[in-house]
Amino acid sequence: MSNLIATYQLYGKPGSFGKKAEGIALGLTIGSWTDLPLLEQQQLQQHKGNVVSVTEFEDSPHPLKPDEIKAVVKISYPSANFSADMPAILTTVFGKLSLDGEVKLLDLDFDEALLAHFPGPRFGIDGIRALLGVTGRPLVMSIFKGVIGRDLDFLAAQLRQQALGGVDLVKDDEILFDNPLTPFEQRITTGKNVLQQAFEETGHRTLYAVNLSGRTSGLRDKAKKARELGADALLFNVHAYGLDVLQELAEDTEVGLPLMAHPAFSGAFTSSSFYGLATPLALGKLVRYAGADFSLFPSPYGSVALEKAQALALGEELVKESPLKRSFPVPSAGIHPGLVPLLINDFGIDSIINAGGGVHGHPDGAAGGGRAFRQAVDAVLSKTTLTDASEQHEELKTALEIWG
Amino acid sequence: MSNLIATYQLYGKPGSFGKKAEGIALGLTIGSWTDLPLLEQQQLQQHKGNVVSVTEFEDSPHPLKPDEIKAVVKISYPSANFSADMPAILTTVFGKLSLDGEVKLLDLDFDEALLAHFPGPRFGIDGIRALLGVTGRPLVMSIFKGVIGRDLDFLAAQLRQQALGGVDLVKDDEILFDNPLTPFEQRITTGKNVLQQAFEETGHRTLYAVNLSGRTSGLRDKAKKARELGADALLFNVHAYGLDVLQELAEDTEVGLPLMAHPAFSGAFTSSSFYGLATPLALGKLVRYAGADFSLFPSPYGSVALEKAQALALGEELVKESPLKRSFPVPSAGIHPGLVPLLINDFGIDSIINAGGGVHGHPDGAAGGGRAFRQAVDAVLSKTTLTDASEQHEELKTALEIWG
Repeated sequence: MSNLIATYQLYGKPGSFGKKAEGIALGLTIGSWTDLPLLEQQQLQQHKGNVVSVTEFEDSPHPLKPDEIKAVVKISYPSANFSADMPAILTTVFGKLSLDGEVKLLDLDFDEALLAHFPGPRFGIDGIRALLGVTGRPLVMSIFKGVIGRDLDFLAAQLRQQALGGVDLVKDDEILFDNPLTPFEQRITTGKNVLQQAFEETGHRTLYAVNLSGRTSGLRDKAKKARELGADALLFNVHAYGLDVLQELAEDTEVGLPLMAHPAFSGAFTSSSFYGLATPLALGKLVRYAGADFSLFPSPYGSVALEKAQALALGEELVKESPLKRSFPVPSAGIHPGLVPLLINDFGIDSIINAGGGVHGHPDGAAGGGRAFRQAVDAVLSKTTLTDASEQHEELKTALEIWG
Repeated sequence: MSNLIATYQLYGKPGSFGKKAEGIALGLTIGSWTDLPLLEQQQLQQHKGNVVSVTEFEDSPHPLKPDEIKAVVKISYPSANFSADMPAILTTVFGKLSLDGEVKLLDLDFDEALLAHFPGPRFGIDGIRALLGVTGRPLVMSIFKGVIGRDLDFLAAQLRQQALGGVDLVKDDEILFDNPLTPFEQRITTGKNVLQQAFEETGHRTLYAVNLSGRTSGLRDKAKKARELGADALLFNVHAYGLDVLQELAEDTEVGLPLMAHPAFSGAFTSSSFYGLATPLALGKLVRYAGADFSLFPSPYGSVALEKAQALALGEELVKESPLKRSFPVPSAGIHPGLVPLLINDFGIDSIINAGGGVHGHPDGAAGGGRAFRQAVDAVLSKTTLTDASEQHEELKTALEIWG
């Protein structure tokens, strides 16, 4: 019998959690048990939720309620109770329960039978590497900056500078939507020309992820059109739409483009220590299951950052052993070339080094910024310190002087 | 020039909020300002976000950080920056920002031009009343209980009992998805027969809201099929899908059915005092704008309940003056007949009294439970106390003895 195991964090009085867990397991499945006649118990057995484990943490008191402690509870839900889609799963394990006081959904364990309904990334890390022809090093990505209100020439020039710096990927600003100055289709065709030109000049291939936006039912046709026009990849604000919308794009063979999941809006349901979803589940496991080839998330290094243990656990969810392909971890925000050794140490070579200000803020422009990142990556892989490498590389030297 | 004004709650040191607000207004629009040449400032002026107001609350210290206080900040975003859809709006005003520390989105003010892109409820309160032929009193709704793992006969019997009690609406359990025992289409046709039979016996019309579930791209055809089969209304777990998915169902003339928005999963992004969205915005204003004819939300009376001020503000969002039709407030959970005077006082007669346990737990069964609610409503409207009314009405008397 197929099951889904949900792991929750609760707060309450010591000794209170077993009953609470039993209430969840029944309340979110068959409703009641002990007062049912034996025959009905037999009929409903295969639909009954079950408490798998209850672990109290006596040393983790509630920060505001001194008589309460933390507990972690695992509950198993029969897959027979829900259809194998994200909305049904989220509604079952965290529908009503999300409104029921301080309860946070930490993890979901899909068994093999359930997982078979989820596509995972179409390309995955290896597929993206094959598109780029790059192996053995982290990829480098940069982000358009300040493009709202600007025209296609401005975007083209900015894209060209980024490409000349040798970055592997450039992504749209996630707040750039369809607009008369830089329409979706023209961003694709213009971007394609710019990147082809840069490739002919430098021999380096850069992919451009264009922001897929608009009404939900129009996304598929828009994505297909993007592919026809030669788009390289799609950026998608999945958490403002819904995980199932991402999954449908990933499953669609006529779309067939790499998908980059942006974390926009996800802080609304991941930031609290008491409510919502754990970040590694939301931005790690679930976006991978739904089919993101890349998952962006706040790096642990910036001024406002994801806690390091959370960021590492998130990265691990994207690449760990699974029947599904691996998604690229893209720790973002506050990244400059001086952080490259740390990034590679923390997230491995199968990750993406992604920068906005750290590319565009370089005194030699975005091209210089991109070069500094590539130089830093090469230094780490050849086991040279950045300081030593900077003696040979002007752009890296400049970057280290600015950002340290 | 059309604008969207977002209201945020922040925490920080006194005097720090002006700069923080300016950073948000620029960071979520054109990126930078003071270092731009005058010509570019002129070009970008119409895309620039602006701080509308900053209000510090010296008497509201952060519960855990004694040197920080609360502030409320309003920022205006030009509508020219985003397409007029919920995902673009949420990404603009709370995309990256949702990940940026303790910031909560309290409200959004759509101006008339922007609001014109949103349909609001197709039926609204008056349209639902017209379907039922009921005016001048709150509607009474009940909920299927313990239906997972049960067959159509069980559902039919439970539906009949509820209808015989005189409730106006019955809604599916939100965790009942497509399943071999009680498939979607057969729930509709069986339910229709049961309710027609009850109508012929009692002269009272009850509507049944069936749970619309499954993959996003299949919802429209499924909803159309539901309409063909004579479904009365659709229950929808909007927050597990996305607001735009609800909006597309509401806009679709071929669907054309009343839509009941369930709050499942919404606690993930509304429960925290520091993060996410305010409940009146999420379950009030936005679901109304997106087209829900009914919005369910936690009542302020149960053991785990929405704070009363929040629940009242939510109810107000659903019915206040607007070019859009009004949505029915459905305060839910912990409702029994003894609460009817309070419910009518708090939410008015244009609301729905919705009960699960308070109907099914009645000693005379769901039929008795429904009658007790209807008797309580009649008592309040005729300015009789429940105690006085219970002398004439057995079911109400029994209910008051149990629940008080």
